Amino acid sequence: MERHFDEQLTVLKNTLIKMSALSETMITEAIRVLCERNAAAIPHIRKREEEVNRLQIEIDGICLRLIALYQPTAGDLRFILGAVKTNADLERMADMAINICDKAGPLLEEPPLDLLNTGLSEMAALASQMVKDSLHAYVNRATDQAHAVLLRDDELDDMNRRITADLLALMQKDSGIIKRAVDMLVVARNLERIGDHATNIAENAIFVVKGLDVRHHHE
Amino acid sequence: MERHFDEQLTVLKNTLIKMSALSETMITEAIRVLCERNAAAIPHIRKREEEVNRLQIEIDGICLRLIALYQPTAGDLRFILGAVKTNADLERMADMAINICDKAGPLLEEPPLDLLNTGLSEMAALASQMVKDSLHAYVNRATDQAHAVLLRDDELDDMNRRITADLLALMQKDSGIIKRAVDMLVVARNLERIGDHATNIAENAIFVVKGLDVRHHHE
Repeated sequence: MERHFDEQLTVLKNTLIKMSALSETMITEAIRVLCERNAAAIPHIRKREEEVNRLQIEIDGICLRLIALYQPTAGDLRFILGAVKTNADLERMADMAINICDKAGPLLEEPPLDLLNTGLSEMAALASQMVKDSLHAYVNRATDQAHAVLLRDDELDDMNRRITADLLALMQKDSGIIKRAVDMLVVARNLERIGDHATNIAENAIFVVKGLDVRHHHE
Repeated sequence: MERHFDEQLTVLKNTLIKMSALSETMITEAIRVLCERNAAAIPHIRKREEEVNRLQIEIDGICLRLIALYQPTAGDLRFILGAVKTNADLERMADMAINICDKAGPLLEEPPLDLLNTGLSEMAALASQMVKDSLHAYVNRATDQAHAVLLRDDELDDMNRRITADLLALMQKDSGIIKRAVDMLVVARNLERIGDHATNIAENAIFVVKGLDVRHHHE
C-alpha cells in the first residue's frame, strides 16, 4: 500500500512538472510571437493549451484518487491539497499566455513599438524562470527556493512599472499609438500576473513545509 | 462520526459564505470609493482584507481536518477539494478589490472622468452578484445557477470591452487624461477578473456535481 502510494505521488509530481513545463513554453512562445512578429505560431500555442486543460483534469483526478485510496495525513495530505491549488495556478498561467496571443493578433497588424521588445522579453524570461523555480520548490518542498521566488516577484513588478511608465510617456507624445500601447500594457500585466501565480505556488510550497514544522513541534 | 462530519461540513459552508460576503462587500465598497470620491473609506477596506486572509487560513484548515479525520469519499471529497480551490478564488477577489483601492488613491487626486462612473458601478454590481451566485451554487451544489454564472461572465466581458473602447476614445481626444484613463482601464479589468474568479467557482460547483453523476452512472 505504502509503495503504491509513493508511486502515485511520483506520478503526481511528474504530471505537475510536465504541466509546468508546458505553461513555461507557452509563455516564452507567446512573447516570441510578439517580439519576432510571427503570428503563424499562435495556433500552435493554442493547441498546447488543450494539452494543459487535459493535464489539469488529470492532476485533479490523481489528487482525488490519492486521497480516496490511501487516506494520507499530515505533510502528504497538505502536499496533495497544495497540488490541487498549484494545478489551478498552472492552468491560469497558460490562460495568460493565451491572453498575450489574443493581444498579439491585433498588435502584429500594426507597425511595431520597437522600444519595448527588450523589456517584454526580459519580463517573460523572469516570469518563466519564476514558474520553473516555484514548481521545483513545490515538488521538492524546498522553502529556500520558494522564498527566492517571492523576492523575485518584486523585481517583476518593478519591470512592469517601468514598462507601464514608458508606454504612458509614449502615448502622451503620440496619440496614434494609444491603442497599441494599451494592448502592450495588457501584455506586460499578463506577465506580471504569471509572476503572481508563481508566487502562489511558492506560498503553497511553504504551506506544505510550514505545516510539517508545526506537526514536528507538537511531536 | 457521521453527525460530526455533517456538522463540520456545515461549518465549512458557513465559513465560505462569510468569506464570500466579505469579498462582495469589499468589491462594492472599493467601487464606491471611486464613484463617490471618498478616499476615507480605503483604510476600512484594507482592514477587511486582513479578515479575508484570516478566513482563508481557517478554511484551508477546516478542509484539511475534514479529510484527515473523516476520510470522506466521492461527492463529499470533491466538495472539500473544490472548497480549497474556491477559497483561493475568494481570496483573490479580495485582492482585486485592494487593487482597485490602489488605483483609487491616485485617481481621486485628479479631477473625475465622470463619463465612466455609471459603467463601473454597473460592472461592479454584476461582478458582486456573480460572486454571490457562484458561491450559492457551490454550497448548494446547484448546477443550473452555476451555468447561469458562466453566461453572465460574457455580459461582464462585454461591459469591460465597452468601457475600454470609451476610454481609448477619450484618450485619443485628450492626452491630458491618459494616466487617469489607464488607471480606470485597470479598475475595469480588475472587475472583469473578479468575474473570472466567480466563473472558476461556478465551474467548481459543476465539477462537484458532475463527478456525482459519473459515480451514479457507475452504480
